[in-house]
Amino acid sequence: MTSYSLGIDLGGTNLRIAAYVSNLEFLETILLPTRLRDGWQAVLSDMAGGIRQLMERYSSQYHLAGIAVGSPGPLELPAGRLLNPPNLAGWNGLELRTELEKLLGQQIIVENDANAATFAEFQLGQGKVYGVDSLCMLTLGTGVGNGIVLGGKIFHGMNGMAGEAGQITIHPDGPLCGCGNHGCLEMYASATAVGRMARERIASGTAPALAELEKNNPDFSARDLYALAKAGDAGALAVFEEVGRSLGIGLAALVNTLNLPLYVVGGGMAEAWDIFSPWLFEELRHRSYVFRLTDADAATIPTKGGRTRIVPAALGPDAGLLGACLLPFQTAP
Amino acid sequence: MTSYSLGIDLGGTNLRIAAYVSNLEFLETILLPTRLRDGWQAVLSDMAGGIRQLMERYSSQYHLAGIAVGSPGPLELPAGRLLNPPNLAGWNGLELRTELEKLLGQQIIVENDANAATFAEFQLGQGKVYGVDSLCMLTLGTGVGNGIVLGGKIFHGMNGMAGEAGQITIHPDGPLCGCGNHGCLEMYASATAVGRMARERIASGTAPALAELEKNNPDFSARDLYALAKAGDAGALAVFEEVGRSLGIGLAALVNTLNLPLYVVGGGMAEAWDIFSPWLFEELRHRSYVFRLTDADAATIPTKGGRTRIVPAALGPDAGLLGACLLPFQTAP
Repeated sequence: MTSYSLGIDLGGTNLRIAAYVSNLEFLETILLPTRLRDGWQAVLSDMAGGIRQLMERYSSQYHLAGIAVGSPGPLELPAGRLLNPPNLAGWNGLELRTELEKLLGQQIIVENDANAATFAEFQLGQGKVYGVDSLCMLTLGTGVGNGIVLGGKIFHGMNGMAGEAGQITIHPDGPLCGCGNHGCLEMYASATAVGRMARERIASGTAPALAELEKNNPDFSARDLYALAKAGDAGALAVFEEVGRSLGIGLAALVNTLNLPLYVVGGGMAEAWDIFSPWLFEELRHRSYVFRLTDADAATIPTKGGRTRIVPAALGPDAGLLGACLLPFQTAP
Repeated sequence: MTSYSLGIDLGGTNLRIAAYVSNLEFLETILLPTRLRDGWQAVLSDMAGGIRQLMERYSSQYHLAGIAVGSPGPLELPAGRLLNPPNLAGWNGLELRTELEKLLGQQIIVENDANAATFAEFQLGQGKVYGVDSLCMLTLGTGVGNGIVLGGKIFHGMNGMAGEAGQITIHPDGPLCGCGNHGCLEMYASATAVGRMARERIASGTAPALAELEKNNPDFSARDLYALAKAGDAGALAVFEEVGRSLGIGLAALVNTLNLPLYVVGGGMAEAWDIFSPWLFEELRHRSYVFRLTDADAATIPTKGGRTRIVPAALGPDAGLLGACLLPFQTAP
């Protein structure tokens, strides 16, 4: 009997629940709003309802390998307990895994959403393309997420909070982040940061095309800025320069610390890779001799143990949901 | 028959070669100058000579478990090849392991010196005190070294260059380091950096006691500055504030990325721990929510998976040599 898994991607806005078979395709995906206003009980009830619905539909045909949830953090793992999650207000201390297990009467795997996306990229995305057993991914979305896979497994650190490199300090005196730090990577490389940096340039009066964009569309997106940058606008390019340089500084810290074969930049903002990546590589070469010695494209001393590659993600916005679906197929640690 | 090992600590100034028995003591230590001026052949010949001398003395009494060398990096591992080492001029590309194996007709383990010191601290120092299976150490000496132990083993990354966190960027526009980067941790937390920062304060005319120190002793050391700081001098304290804050920013990046139970600050500069550590903790709390959530002394949400501790090293300047002696007792990876 073919196995299938059930995965949940718990987002601040949307809740996605999917059934997945091991031949690499979704059987079905349920999309619901995340009813944060109605409290965590309502959201967990929606999650359990979706899971039950999919189980009823597929459990006669397939063997259920397991159920996993990708959740925003911070999250203590494997306990599956939320610790002051900024995007799930009121959920502090919630035993997400235990509460879901009570509702469903089944064992549940809870994973950090960025770790889940990283695991999908490892198994089915760039990790597969390059045939590596370890990688580090940054996901550039509303915030900057991070996940690390070492030796084929998600690296959790002592209680599930490894891979929070979105909070690495880039400029110690930079703007205040929701994480409490000033000038962390998330303040320069997230979609939110791109909006802030664009508005700072508009306010300074140095970016007429950005001012025009804001006048026509006050809720302009990172994608609108990307279109302007592609058209050669200096103000929009300056914003993406800051994205690229900050990523380069942050990646240099990760390359110097981890010396992995592959670093992947994913999330919605990675669509602007062609614009910001030259600055990323400039900073990385400047700030990491480990990178210079192992640069897959330009190293002058060929090493025997492999090269360092920095690439945009191969998987799109489904990576987190896909990762949740892949986790139940993994054997216990 | 009791086992013994032979360890070499290859420094830019001194070469130390020791025989060590597994009941945790050195049988004998040979101290030689590192004859860099005479070329790598001379230094390797001294290393082989010392090893042979110790083998003749102890091989009838004890079983030789193996021989290991702790060497300055960058170093490709396990190949044991030097890659542009700044402190071993002219050794670029040298196959240190292979050359030593040729001279001795024996298998040799080559390890990065900071990794060797970290491993000693793990097995016999603070790692033993706290009973952890993973830790990260920064060694504050002429430069800032770094080593990472995960699950009881030195973490090497793909080719031995993991654990170069001394080169993490702290201030992107800071002073140029020998590593090619600007403003990396080494430029603020090494003994060399302390001397530079003190001279900058003297030059600015804002540190009369430091100026007096330099007048009396142009070659003043970090230890002299420490004595002044202990006596309450504002100029010396300001220098150690910069050491502490920079370490806090760097450690925050490591805590956010690795989420380990223990981070150790070693090397000669760690003697000033009592002076600089309050600033270190202030920055760390500010810049790492992972630390705040798991702070061994102050966390408000008790986690189930353990606490984060940041402590000064328990072992002294012999840590690197001791680490080299411990490595042969480890089983293959």
